[in-house]
Amino acid sequence: MKTPTLTTSLPAPDVLRCAYMEIQVTSLSAAREFYVDILGLHVTAEDEKTLYLRSLEEFIHHNVVLREGPVAAVAAFAFRVRAPEDVDRAEAYYQALGCKTERRVNGFVKGVGDAVRVEDPLGFPYEFFYDVQHVDRLAWRYDLYTPGALVRLDHFNQITPDVPRAVDYMQGLGFRVTEEIRDENGVVYAAWMRRKATVHDTAMTGGAGPRMHHIAFATHEKHNILAICDKLGALRKSDMIERGPGRHGVSNAFYLYLRDPDGHRIEIYTQDYYTGDPDNPVVSWDVHDNQRRDWWGSPVVPSWYHEGSRVLTLDGTVQPVIAREDPGEEAVTVGADGFSYTRKGDTEQGFKLGNTL
Amino acid sequence: MKTPTLTTSLPAPDVLRCAYMEIQVTSLSAAREFYVDILGLHVTAEDEKTLYLRSLEEFIHHNVVLREGPVAAVAAFAFRVRAPEDVDRAEAYYQALGCKTERRVNGFVKGVGDAVRVEDPLGFPYEFFYDVQHVDRLAWRYDLYTPGALVRLDHFNQITPDVPRAVDYMQGLGFRVTEEIRDENGVVYAAWMRRKATVHDTAMTGGAGPRMHHIAFATHEKHNILAICDKLGALRKSDMIERGPGRHGVSNAFYLYLRDPDGHRIEIYTQDYYTGDPDNPVVSWDVHDNQRRDWWGSPVVPSWYHEGSRVLTLDGTVQPVIAREDPGEEAVTVGADGFSYTRKGDTEQGFKLGNTL
Amino acid sequence: MKTPTLTTSLPAPDVLRCAYMEIQVTSLSAAREFYVDILGLHVTAEDEKTLYLRSLEEFIHHNVVLREGPVAAVAAFAFRVRAPEDVDRAEAYYQALGCKTERRVNGFVKGVGDAVRVEDPLGFPYEFFYDVQHVDRLAWRYDLYTPGALVRLDHFNQITPDVPRAVDYMQGLGFRVTEEIRDENGVVYAAWMRRKATVHDTAMTGGAGPRMHHIAFATHEKHNILAICDKLGALRKSDMIERGPGRHGVSNAFYLYLRDPDGHRIEIYTQDYYTGDPDNPVVSWDVHDNQRRDWWGSPVVPSWYHEGSRVLTLDGTVQPVIAREDPGEEAVTVGADGFSYTRKGDTEQGFKLGNTL
Amino acid sequence: MKTPTLTTSLPAPDVLRCAYMEIQVTSLSAAREFYVDILGLHVTAEDEKTLYLRSLEEFIHHNVVLREGPVAAVAAFAFRVRAPEDVDRAEAYYQALGCKTERRVNGFVKGVGDAVRVEDPLGFPYEFFYDVQHVDRLAWRYDLYTPGALVRLDHFNQITPDVPRAVDYMQGLGFRVTEEIRDENGVVYAAWMRRKATVHDTAMTGGAGPRMHHIAFATHEKHNILAICDKLGALRKSDMIERGPGRHGVSNAFYLYLRDPDGHRIEIYTQDYYTGDPDNPVVSWDVHDNQRRDWWGSPVVPSWYHEGSRVLTLDGTVQPVIAREDPGEEAVTVGADGFSYTRKGDTEQGFKLGNTL
Repeated sequence: MKTPTLTTSLPAPDVLRCAYMEIQVTSLSAAREFYVDILGLHVTAEDEKTLYLRSLEEFIHHNVVLREGPVAAVAAFAFRVRAPEDVDRAEAYYQALGCKTERRVNGFVKGVGDAVRVEDPLGFPYEFFYDVQHVDRLAWRYDLYTPGALVRLDHFNQITPDVPRAVDYMQGLGFRVTEEIRDENGVVYAAWMRRKATVHDTAMTGGAGPRMHHIAFATHEKHNILAICDKLGALRKSDMIERGPGRHGVSNAFYLYLRDPDGHRIEIYTQDYYTGDPDNPVVSWDVHDNQRRDWWGSPVVPSWYHEGSRVLTLDGTVQPVIAREDPGEEAVTVGADGFSYTRKGDTEQGFKLGNTL
Repeated sequence: MKTPTLTTSLPAPDVLRCAYMEIQVTSLSAAREFYVDILGLHVTAEDEKTLYLRSLEEFIHHNVVLREGPVAAVAAFAFRVRAPEDVDRAEAYYQALGCKTERRVNGFVKGVGDAVRVEDPLGFPYEFFYDVQHVDRLAWRYDLYTPGALVRLDHFNQITPDVPRAVDYMQGLGFRVTEEIRDENGVVYAAWMRRKATVHDTAMTGGAGPRMHHIAFATHEKHNILAICDKLGALRKSDMIERGPGRHGVSNAFYLYLRDPDGHRIEIYTQDYYTGDPDNPVVSWDVHDNQRRDWWGSPVVPSWYHEGSRVLTLDGTVQPVIAREDPGEEAVTVGADGFSYTRKGDTEQGFKLGNTL
Repeated sequence: MKTPTLTTSLPAPDVLRCAYMEIQVTSLSAAREFYVDILGLHVTAEDEKTLYLRSLEEFIHHNVVLREGPVAAVAAFAFRVRAPEDVDRAEAYYQALGCKTERRVNGFVKGVGDAVRVEDPLGFPYEFFYDVQHVDRLAWRYDLYTPGALVRLDHFNQITPDVPRAVDYMQGLGFRVTEEIRDENGVVYAAWMRRKATVHDTAMTGGAGPRMHHIAFATHEKHNILAICDKLGALRKSDMIERGPGRHGVSNAFYLYLRDPDGHRIEIYTQDYYTGDPDNPVVSWDVHDNQRRDWWGSPVVPSWYHEGSRVLTLDGTVQPVIAREDPGEEAVTVGADGFSYTRKGDTEQGFKLGNTL
Repeated sequence: MKTPTLTTSLPAPDVLRCAYMEIQVTSLSAAREFYVDILGLHVTAEDEKTLYLRSLEEFIHHNVVLREGPVAAVAAFAFRVRAPEDVDRAEAYYQALGCKTERRVNGFVKGVGDAVRVEDPLGFPYEFFYDVQHVDRLAWRYDLYTPGALVRLDHFNQITPDVPRAVDYMQGLGFRVTEEIRDENGVVYAAWMRRKATVHDTAMTGGAGPRMHHIAFATHEKHNILAICDKLGALRKSDMIERGPGRHGVSNAFYLYLRDPDGHRIEIYTQDYYTGDPDNPVVSWDVHDNQRRDWWGSPVVPSWYHEGSRVLTLDGTVQPVIAREDPGEEAVTVGADGFSYTRKGDTEQGFKLGNTL
């Protein structure tokens, strides 16, 4: 198969938002314990091999599909589009790009109707759908809330070797960049892109890809995120906490990263900002600013930079990954000859720098 | 002047969001103390007669213009549109409705360029603009945050006698209803409508109008709202608190209503939900549900139902008001022969009902 | 029986803190739903007619005993003392006062050993004990926390006709006054008294008594209290919310008052201050300061002033009440000819004053 | 001078609580920026060389004295006692121990009267006083609160080579152990001790000493602590954050460690539990439990283990330190041959263990 192009003059589907992810897990019972018993996602439906879960403010059938399978991997990044015809547009668009597509009028998963799945130019399995079963929005059901209640799917985050190439592709699809990490040589390390009016529906992180970096759920307040950590401690599962909690520089949101029993990374996230104006200012961070990834300057654990979930082809096989050619973010920020700086021009290395890594 | 029509076949301007309100106050120094010293809105610019204020996450020049004048009234409800041409569309649209319009290519207020102001079919002074001066988004400036930091303009709320008529007009303008209060006879007491993906950019509340019911700013968390109450208590200005804090039934947001020194009503608001899908379910509340206005069943103070700010014509005179013909919400919920119910079918009247009013 | 004296020269027992309340309820299943299912108190033990409940940070057997009985009433206000001999001291002390006492070396309730119960000079059933079964402190069991987790018993509040007389008695027992409400004529409307280093272990509120005004549990943060309101709304039980949430003037704590299915009043309370120094300054509030009961000036509902739970004699009969002779707090603050003031010297009555009552 | 004994049969002074620390700083202006401008401690008094600061709920003159001097060191750990005579008792007690003492009837610092300072058997400069100037308790002054408002001095933490020896001494002085860290061989790594009814007034941490590990201030809620981090980020001073924020295992409190411009360590702390009963259960942590220091399993930075502030003798010279002979906590938990465990019996080393250090 020849390399797909990144853009086409055909109209792109009108994407509303990231809507759900289909994740393959190696043990559904272990995944159920994590996503339902610990995180408190609400079970919309389930069968022996599959769990359909949603956040408390959601009115569509699910935000996550967990499916038991032989390897831990992501089967689909699914986006909702504005109208039924946008599914047609998506199919035509990706066919014009030269991508493999599969259309199923009855959907790929329970609760979702007519949908198209594609292997996109970066190798990711994207799905586009409009038709979806409505379910009760549980926003007012405070009797169901836990201390760490997840109220909304916020975004996806993907790993891809060439970030500018990924940005070109996503902009063609109608996404807008809100923030990015660069260096003085023009290397782009990561970019955040949105359709809905938040900082992102998905981000592109530089690294060997295609891989899934994380899926993020929103809580209402910061203490909700702390409560999840406290609960993991009480369950003696604190080693599921990979990074955080902390305040992001990028997005200004408060965050926590967990790893599910298969190693899939979950972010819990709250309080980024409105980005819906077309001239919303893009925030560009210097890769050497040590507050870009954590506003408090906390170091990023190496696993967070290096590890990610493999993705599946439409046939269900594991998509091969391609290495990044540009320097990696960890390599340039935590090198032998220097460390991230806190303040521009600082040469002194305080206790935060170096000896904690 | 003949009565304007509510809709036209001309294309409506593509409204992004409520953007700012121009409020006439009778003492700029008293207003400054309230909006700047107490509420902590950031001063973008000021002169002897005018203050331009913004919330911490805003990147456009202002969210409120306070202008000293002879009477307390609202001079403009200003909406930002998607593109410069939408200002042309707005002008043509309102002219087609038979409304009075005024176009100023250099804008009506500092920081805003080409704009049109109209006296809309309901008598409200609306402004539409795209061109605006960008200023620093202070989201990351935590050194400027106060315990009750206001981070975003959330919505307007307008009083008008005939809510269904207002809804027809606003839907023509491209707004979508998200929630409403009705009774079993089809009387509509209020409706919430949005362009951006929150519960509302403006709401229409039934009552003698046109009047402004309130302007609402968002905080990040609920404790921020409580902190404003605590501070008003410390300043011995607790009588500026009109209603709340509490949890709304409608919108599910946490709220507080204040009155500024001129009696203009300000809401502080946090944590409603995403409404950006075109098939977002409309929530319809029974006017006899006593949790509709306050989820905890706290009674609404009469002033909140009855009082509102007058609005100005384009000439700066006070727009006359027209009475509501349908029954008012307070009248049907706090009548001589009955009270709001907590649970459907309840006949017993507990301590919350009646004797606290 | 002749009237007991208020003080004696015998040594008072060394009281550590308020420890538990035995409450008679008319339906144990209704009480269980409220205290366990809704409020989340932890069940230490139960039998057909009795529930033993504790808060999450408690290590003694219980903080509440709910016992099903023919009338809703309080059977005991129980205080823990410093040493076993303090139970002897308590018995001798009350006998010297001329009070009826009953000693049970195996305790009155499960989990508590040697204890004495007395009918005190004000007619309240007090218990004093040291010996108690230790149970797991659940402080680290975040897997058991709910959004409104109750972590500690904070205080009792009692209604008695003559507050200065009650203060004399309690000071004899070793309690210290931390705050009080007075008027310019020297009338005392309420007083707060402590053994542990918080604002109170119990308060004396002026009114027909002996009655129990409320029992208060502490949460960690203010949002925990709001979560209880939200949950009651979701369960359509919002009429259990009697007053608040709000910020107290007295104690500076954040509060909420609920009524259980029998009408017993429960306060949820957080964030008062350290009072453990012997010269801790007493805060004296003017009864005409409308921020004394609610720092935000929210009016107090009449039921909160007037209603309370009856208490039982040691024989289990309902103790008669004696009326208050001094003017009542509601009478002097919400009179026909005037209202509470917000700021000293204010004569104007804003929207908060009068017309909301 | 011969080695002081640890205990004596003389009565110990009745200590109420840790009350203030006198800290020598090398730049008063740099310290003022940190403690006043950033942390928001309230200035009770100041002169050219000295700052007297208090927390918002304090009613005694100060909780910290910052004095400019040639070296960064601690001049006094000051405890308040119950009565004036306890100062006499303290003086006699330490003289009986063979310690150097100095009595000043007019106090050592502004605001404090009759006081005795001693070089205690561990080499720490302790002060005991009763007489102190009362100042306004600012608890209700919400107009002065910042997002990270410090409301109370909570505790001290001291570094000493032989923890059991230190515990013997402190118990003689009337302190009670609430928590401790031990290993299976009986080595004690740290112990927490209290007079007031919280987890500690001071803790003894094993290491070369005498040194001061930290001084801790309490906030009301967890978000207050996060706000301090956010503000330090905004000021580009995030390298002042040494460790946290996080949840302690020991004490169950939420915490953050900062370093002032001289390297003195400040903890911000909230929500430990009531410990006032004499039979309050002691919590004993296994040094190999990786949730003992951080309930979420976050690794402790090496500087936190190794660095501390020197203390001064009564003559103002720097007290020499003595090395610890028992193994250090870091050495046994982060050794070459193994790592802390999350769950007992775990042998697998997840991403949290080892490779993040």
